[in-house]
Amino acid sequence: MNKTILLNNRPNGKPQESDFKFTDSDIPVVNNGEVLLKTKYVSVDPYMRGRMSDAESYIEPFQLNKPINSGIIAEVIESKNDSFTKGDFVSGMLDWKEQQTHNGKDLLKVDADKAPLSAYLGILGMTGLTAYHGLTEIGKPKEGETIVVSGAAGAVGSTVGQIGKILGCRVIGIAGSDEKVDMLKSKYGFDAAINYKTTEDMTKAIADATPKGVDVYYDNVGGTISDAVHANINRFGRIVVCGAISLYNSTSLPTGPRIEPILIKKSVLMQGFIVNNFSDKFPEGMDQLSQWLKAGKLDFSETIVEGFDNIPNAFLDLFEGKNKGKMIVKV
Amino acid sequence: MNKTILLNNRPNGKPQESDFKFTDSDIPVVNNGEVLLKTKYVSVDPYMRGRMSDAESYIEPFQLNKPINSGIIAEVIESKNDSFTKGDFVSGMLDWKEQQTHNGKDLLKVDADKAPLSAYLGILGMTGLTAYHGLTEIGKPKEGETIVVSGAAGAVGSTVGQIGKILGCRVIGIAGSDEKVDMLKSKYGFDAAINYKTTEDMTKAIADATPKGVDVYYDNVGGTISDAVHANINRFGRIVVCGAISLYNSTSLPTGPRIEPILIKKSVLMQGFIVNNFSDKFPEGMDQLSQWLKAGKLDFSETIVEGFDNIPNAFLDLFEGKNKGKMIVKV
Repeated sequence: MNKTILLNNRPNGKPQESDFKFTDSDIPVVNNGEVLLKTKYVSVDPYMRGRMSDAESYIEPFQLNKPINSGIIAEVIESKNDSFTKGDFVSGMLDWKEQQTHNGKDLLKVDADKAPLSAYLGILGMTGLTAYHGLTEIGKPKEGETIVVSGAAGAVGSTVGQIGKILGCRVIGIAGSDEKVDMLKSKYGFDAAINYKTTEDMTKAIADATPKGVDVYYDNVGGTISDAVHANINRFGRIVVCGAISLYNSTSLPTGPRIEPILIKKSVLMQGFIVNNFSDKFPEGMDQLSQWLKAGKLDFSETIVEGFDNIPNAFLDLFEGKNKGKMIVKV
Repeated sequence: MNKTILLNNRPNGKPQESDFKFTDSDIPVVNNGEVLLKTKYVSVDPYMRGRMSDAESYIEPFQLNKPINSGIIAEVIESKNDSFTKGDFVSGMLDWKEQQTHNGKDLLKVDADKAPLSAYLGILGMTGLTAYHGLTEIGKPKEGETIVVSGAAGAVGSTVGQIGKILGCRVIGIAGSDEKVDMLKSKYGFDAAINYKTTEDMTKAIADATPKGVDVYYDNVGGTISDAVHANINRFGRIVVCGAISLYNSTSLPTGPRIEPILIKKSVLMQGFIVNNFSDKFPEGMDQLSQWLKAGKLDFSETIVEGFDNIPNAFLDLFEGKNKGKMIVKV
C-alpha cells in the first residue's frame, strides 16, 4: 500500500492530530516523461501552519482533503524521464506520500556523497538560504556589530548565529531551555545566550548581554520576546522579520506595544520576507554555505524523527519547541 | 524688553499652557563674530513633543527652565560677522526669543524675493525635505502605484501627496474633517480622501479607495488609522514611518495589533526616519522642490498665527488638528 497524509480540518488555534488524515492508495503508474519517487526525508516547518488556514497569504493554502506537501528528499525508483536515472536522489516540494510520480519539473538532483541527504532540507536547502539571505540582504551586519537571534536553537536561528560569527559580529541567542542555551554557546559559538523561560526581566537580560546595544535583530518568534529586543535596538538598527511562531496559533489578533515610536526614535528598519524573494541569489547563497560547510565553519543540528506515520506529530512538536535545529522525518 | 519662552514642566500626556513659562531679559550685547537676530517666523512641529520629555531619543531633550528652540526665520538687525549684513534674513534652529545673538554657524541665508519667508520653514525647509526624502528614499514609489498618506492635510502630508501625483501615482489621503478632505482633492489633487472622524469602517473605506491595494503608506499618525491601512498593504509594500502624532501624548505604552504577521505575509518593509538622516541629499531635495514650486506643480498651505505670545498655543493646537498645512507663528 501507499500512504498519503491529507489536510482533514483547518486548525482553530494550535493544530492537532485530528487535523490530519491518513489514506491508502495504489502505487501510481509511471507515464512517459515521469519518474516514480520514494520519499526518504520530509521537512516539517513552522510556516506550514499558515498554509493550513485559508487566509490570504504569500503561498496558496493547503486544500482540504488533498495531500499536504513540503520539502522532501526522494529516491528515483523508476524513471521514464531522460533527466533522471533509477537511484538518483532529488529534492523538491512534494506530497506527503510514501510514493508518487512526478514530471521532473523543479526537481533538483542532490549528491549523497557531498553531504548527508537530510542536509539538503536544512543547512544546504531552504533553511540555510533563509538564514543567509535574510541576514545579509536585510540585516546587513557589519563587522563588530551586535546581532540578536530569537528562536536561536532552531534550524534557521542556529545558522544565522554562526553566519553572524563568521562575519565578525557579536551574537546573542534567545532559546527556551538551558540545554539549548548551552548548545548555542558550545556548539555554535554564540557569545551569549538567554533562556527566556527562566529569565524574569528579558529587557534587562538583553541589555546586559549587549553592552553596545542591538544592531541587527533576526526575529523568528515575535511576541513579548521581541518586545524586549526592540527595547534595546540601536539607532539605525535592522529588524529582520523571518517568522513569528509565537503568534501563528493565535485565534484572536495578537496585540502588543505599537512599534512606530521605536522605529521613528531610532530610525529603525523592519522588514518581513520569505526566502523565495531572493531566489535570483540562491546560487550565490548555496555556494557560500557549501564553502563554509566544507571549511568546517558551519555546524548544524537535526532532530530526526523516524517513520512516515510520525510526520504530523513531528510538525505539531515544532510548536512545543521539541526540536533542536531542523526537524526532519526519516521515512 | 526681550521675551523668552522656557520649558516650565515636562508634560504628562497632552502638553498644556502651564508647561511653558515666559521671561523677560535685556537685549543682548553683540560680540565680535556675532549677529543680532530678530525673530520673524517660528515653526511649531509635532516632533517637539518628544523633546519635552527626557526619554532617550534621536535629539536631545529640551532642558527645564531653558529656552525652547525650533526652526525660525530671523532678520539680522546688527552684524559683527563678515558673512552677514544688516537686513539679511536667515533660517536656523533658534531659541524662542524675540531677539538673540548668534555666532552664525549653521545659519542659512534665505531670499525673500524668491519665496515668501515662511515658505523656508515649510515647503522649502524641513517640512518639504521630510516629505520628499521620506517618500523617495524609503517609499520608493513607482509610476502607477498607490500611495496612502495619513495626516494628509498637515504640512508634510499635503506635500507627500503632491509629490506622489507628480511621480505618476494614485494618491489617497486621510484627514480629520470634511473641509480638509475637500482641500486635499481640490487644492492638492489627491485622487481620493477619507474623513476618519466620520467613517465607521476605515479598513473597508481604504479598500474601496485603493482597488489595487496600497503600495506605499506614508504614515504621520500611527494608531488605529494605520491599522486600517496596514490591513490593505500589498505584497512588497513600503511603510514610511514619519510620525505618530496619535501616540505622542500617551501616558501608557500604546498597544495595538502586532505588525509582524503582516510584514512576513506580504514581505513588507517598514522604516522610521528623521529628516537629518538624509542631510547629504538635502541640496538635491531643495533643488527639486524649488523647481516644482517654480513650475507651479506644488501648492502649500500655512496656518499663520500672529504674535510671539501665541507660540505655545499654536504648538498645543497641533494636537487638536487645528492647522491646515504648516503651522507657523508670525512675530
